[in-house]
Amino acid sequence: MDGSSPRPGPKSEFRILSVEDGAARERFDEVATEEPLEIRLVLAGERRTAAVTMRTPGADFELVAGFLYNEGVVHGRSEIRALSYCVDRDVDEEQRYNIVNVELAKSAWPQIERLERHFLTTSACGVCGKASIEALKLRDVVAPDAGPPVRADMITSLPEKLRAGQGVFAATGGLHAAGLFDGEGKLLVLREDVGRHNALDKLVGWALMNGHLPLRERILMVSGRTSFEIVQKSLVSGVPVVCGVSAPSSLAVSLAREFDLTLIGFVRGNRFNVYAGETRVQSAAAGMQL
Amino acid sequence: MDGSSPRPGPKSEFRILSVEDGAARERFDEVATEEPLEIRLVLAGERRTAAVTMRTPGADFELVAGFLYNEGVVHGRSEIRALSYCVDRDVDEEQRYNIVNVELAKSAWPQIERLERHFLTTSACGVCGKASIEALKLRDVVAPDAGPPVRADMITSLPEKLRAGQGVFAATGGLHAAGLFDGEGKLLVLREDVGRHNALDKLVGWALMNGHLPLRERILMVSGRTSFEIVQKSLVSGVPVVCGVSAPSSLAVSLAREFDLTLIGFVRGNRFNVYAGETRVQSAAAGMQL
Repeated sequence: MDGSSPRPGPKSEFRILSVEDGAARERFDEVATEEPLEIRLVLAGERRTAAVTMRTPGADFELVAGFLYNEGVVHGRSEIRALSYCVDRDVDEEQRYNIVNVELAKSAWPQIERLERHFLTTSACGVCGKASIEALKLRDVVAPDAGPPVRADMITSLPEKLRAGQGVFAATGGLHAAGLFDGEGKLLVLREDVGRHNALDKLVGWALMNGHLPLRERILMVSGRTSFEIVQKSLVSGVPVVCGVSAPSSLAVSLAREFDLTLIGFVRGNRFNVYAGETRVQSAAAGMQL
Repeated sequence: MDGSSPRPGPKSEFRILSVEDGAARERFDEVATEEPLEIRLVLAGERRTAAVTMRTPGADFELVAGFLYNEGVVHGRSEIRALSYCVDRDVDEEQRYNIVNVELAKSAWPQIERLERHFLTTSACGVCGKASIEALKLRDVVAPDAGPPVRADMITSLPEKLRAGQGVFAATGGLHAAGLFDGEGKLLVLREDVGRHNALDKLVGWALMNGHLPLRERILMVSGRTSFEIVQKSLVSGVPVVCGVSAPSSLAVSLAREFDLTLIGFVRGNRFNVYAGETRVQSAAAGMQL
């Protein structure tokens, strides 16, 4: 950021010391930008803050749209009239690009209390895994379609495509990535963020704004671990196959099994593990059931 | 979890398909447990929910104590009268170990609204990085003490000690780790969780309950990326040196520089980067200033 352009970019440059074998030299280093984003809902001239989240600037409108969709606040593109940065005079210039106003095309306010609680908790509903899963059924979330059968060699090709799509900077470890692929393993869209959930919200927001929901025939690949929340957002947007470079959590596995979503982890080299929804995976495992 | 013992452990076992070169075989796999935890404050017989967070069971009381300390709800061990799992008859057995009651030794309720907001946002205060940093000054957070000078070869020894402390299971990637070291690089305590902030909250809770706060002479090492929130929690508990295996975010660097906390990233092999507080690092960089 410099004085003339307050809009923060996805990378920030700092002068640092690089130490090797005890010897230090100065150099410049790029790090992923982390800045808060406030989501304000606007209805009939009134404004209410829905959430504030730390995020990496870029694809902010997609992040907001995807977040609201994944949390059940909006159910389609038509419920969003407009997305804009806040340009109020009383908002500091530096903050303007950290506030997004969402003009709703709805007749009544959504349950913001419930939203805050949900965002706060990732589980509005109870305090055990089973209750968290039941709550999704109450939100009318259904099992994804069968989707295309996926070949093992297609799965093992995804991490390299994700890294290539990220570029050198992000692949060095500063950002989480979420990539959406078609049934043949072609990368359709990739989004990044310091927050793993934000990267997926951005993807879903992209799909929402471009009329691609539900994501019935798609495969999601994420760069890190797979949590309950990653599987939850995938179910809401209809993705049938979720792959991760690293491990899933127990609740991610349980949720995927409950809704028959294919959950794959540790995609490394020529190997991967199938934790749920194994019938979509074409391999020598025909007939095996978890 | 089986029927006789509803208390969830840190690992859960699942039958999975392991696919290699397209050939699948069944095996059992351990994944990190993820379950919600509700934190209930109790004062004069009344109860209020302070937060619900996804976490890996284990060190739950430390997690709760550290969370409340890091969020400024309690300022010392003496403000916590008792920590206990909820054993109400109306609470399902399965949920009991996912609810912790915190009996407060305070004369008035803390500002729970503010807490929810803070937890919700990681930034109660404004919607730009500068405002997030200013808010910590308002909470009377001060720069850490000078602390011991740290040797470069001590820094590069930390990742291996952290991995060794984690054990084979966790080191495979299922859990975030946070380790506290003394000035000579000796591991004092290590905590793990599916959530990176939880691992640090558990560490700080351990220190709080054992009378070790502030952590003036200590070095923190985390297994992943270093976010604003990691640096924020470190400042609140007085840690002068924070090291990460991966990259810091821009706001983590800015916050560390504002409070002169030593922030080190990419500790790999014989190398690391110093992003802030370089005067504590003993190396051939004597006299260099960022």
